[in-house]
Amino acid sequence: MPFNCDKLVIVGAGLIGGSLVKALKNAGSEIGEITAVGRNLEILDQARRQGFIDSYSDDVADTVRGADVVIIGTPVGAMRPLFERMYETLPCDCIVSDVGSVKASVVEMARAALKNKAGNFVPAHPISGTEHSGFNASFAELFQNRYTVITPLDENSPQAIARIKDMWLATGSHILEMSVDHHDRVLAATSHLPHVLVYALMNTIAGLPDADKYFQVVAGGFLDYTRIASSDAVMWRDVCLTNREPILKMISEYRGRLEQLEAMIADRDGDALFDQFARAKQVRDDLVDRRVREKTPGSTCS
Amino acid sequence: MPFNCDKLVIVGAGLIGGSLVKALKNAGSEIGEITAVGRNLEILDQARRQGFIDSYSDDVADTVRGADVVIIGTPVGAMRPLFERMYETLPCDCIVSDVGSVKASVVEMARAALKNKAGNFVPAHPISGTEHSGFNASFAELFQNRYTVITPLDENSPQAIARIKDMWLATGSHILEMSVDHHDRVLAATSHLPHVLVYALMNTIAGLPDADKYFQVVAGGFLDYTRIASSDAVMWRDVCLTNREPILKMISEYRGRLEQLEAMIADRDGDALFDQFARAKQVRDDLVDRRVREKTPGSTCS
Repeated sequence: MPFNCDKLVIVGAGLIGGSLVKALKNAGSEIGEITAVGRNLEILDQARRQGFIDSYSDDVADTVRGADVVIIGTPVGAMRPLFERMYETLPCDCIVSDVGSVKASVVEMARAALKNKAGNFVPAHPISGTEHSGFNASFAELFQNRYTVITPLDENSPQAIARIKDMWLATGSHILEMSVDHHDRVLAATSHLPHVLVYALMNTIAGLPDADKYFQVVAGGFLDYTRIASSDAVMWRDVCLTNREPILKMISEYRGRLEQLEAMIADRDGDALFDQFARAKQVRDDLVDRRVREKTPGSTCS
Repeated sequence: MPFNCDKLVIVGAGLIGGSLVKALKNAGSEIGEITAVGRNLEILDQARRQGFIDSYSDDVADTVRGADVVIIGTPVGAMRPLFERMYETLPCDCIVSDVGSVKASVVEMARAALKNKAGNFVPAHPISGTEHSGFNASFAELFQNRYTVITPLDENSPQAIARIKDMWLATGSHILEMSVDHHDRVLAATSHLPHVLVYALMNTIAGLPDADKYFQVVAGGFLDYTRIASSDAVMWRDVCLTNREPILKMISEYRGRLEQLEAMIADRDGDALFDQFARAKQVRDDLVDRRVREKTPGSTCS
């Protein structure tokens, strides 16, 4: 199903914003005008010449005039001033949404800055991405058979929620609806924690005195497990700052588990180690089986 | 280049042992007889009927008679009794090698059990694998364009070392030579530590009260980062027990890094977090660039 609208504004046309535009076009959507707002005008001009967008600007306040859908695709840390700057000129019936990996903080920013217009803000998070960033890394198929989480607010109208769902359905994504808090706890455990762990792993080895010799040996395998460490540092800094409590809780849980394994290794407790490893394997193998059986949508890196 | 010999014995024809046999056959090697030693005679009989091996047995002492090459493909914890049982009947000029992920412990076992015949034991470790195990998961291409590490002993003859190198070259692998201790330190950091971390991650989330709801949301991405948690639990228990010191040292280093990130998140220190994440990203991106530039062999999961 295509997604039609008069004027779509993408603020921050990076990996996600760029892929969204490409996916909507691929679906045959009729969109009167697509305008991108960003700081790197050179890349946006290239996107325009390639026909992905119709126009671009670095002025969000001016650009949202006449828009019926505005999507914020920037890192979470950049959102508050953007909401503030667009407030005055944002049409009263314009639907606003985001793609941020955390939701409670974004909702708080939107409510504070958009005030009486916050009822048209429908928070969303496409659970998809790669370790690359920027418009040039974007592609139309990014959301196909992935989940997009929508965390509707009490003040959202059913129509506003339906518009954002329809947009993501047009990209080939599946929709999951859940509360803001549930989203932030689940993502802290299954996405934010793994990113923190892998950043720590990279820096542990890079900090060894003869790191170069270590890296020389195991190029491929190590690059596989550390793939998510190549994700955008600004985005992940912002995630850690804005989903602080759930992430700290998960790191603390995790440290407990790691210290348990460390003690088992120190104590040469082979039976306990076997139990831990076998249980972890069983849980993951069951997830793989279930996914194959139910053809559950997958997600890539975020 | 094919690898020719009279009688090759594979003790433990799992993912690695099975793939070795298939790769050597694929390379057009002339091998008078290939015999597999294992406990699961049903799978070995299937391998024989499929033409991958000529015979099989569960008696290592009897099977090594007349062999000129014996490869131990079992988890490290099973190796000591195997070396002991083969000692009497092992021909004096038979080359013995292994595929274990740790080397110092294996060398100690081989020296203690093979005594005067230990000079023919050439330790090796193909840095390749998948998260699957067993003969049915094996395939001829597993070692292609991967590294195999050889850690020669002072008592090895140049001829013995050359035989094992030639065997691995025939599988399409590249050879890296290093000391036993260097191997164990490097692998503790780049392979053993990541496995421990991912086992701990799986069990952290599986241990949450509403784990099922967590797993429901992020099937694909989470399955990507936790792939190595599906590795064989016995193998990884043995790795942790036999490479204990280097692994404990790396876990301790790692815990320090993780606690540093935890403190930065608790302190809302965005600049420090950005620095850490950007450094990790830079190191990994450089490794990827170098690999692409030099066409460095990769490795899969081990």
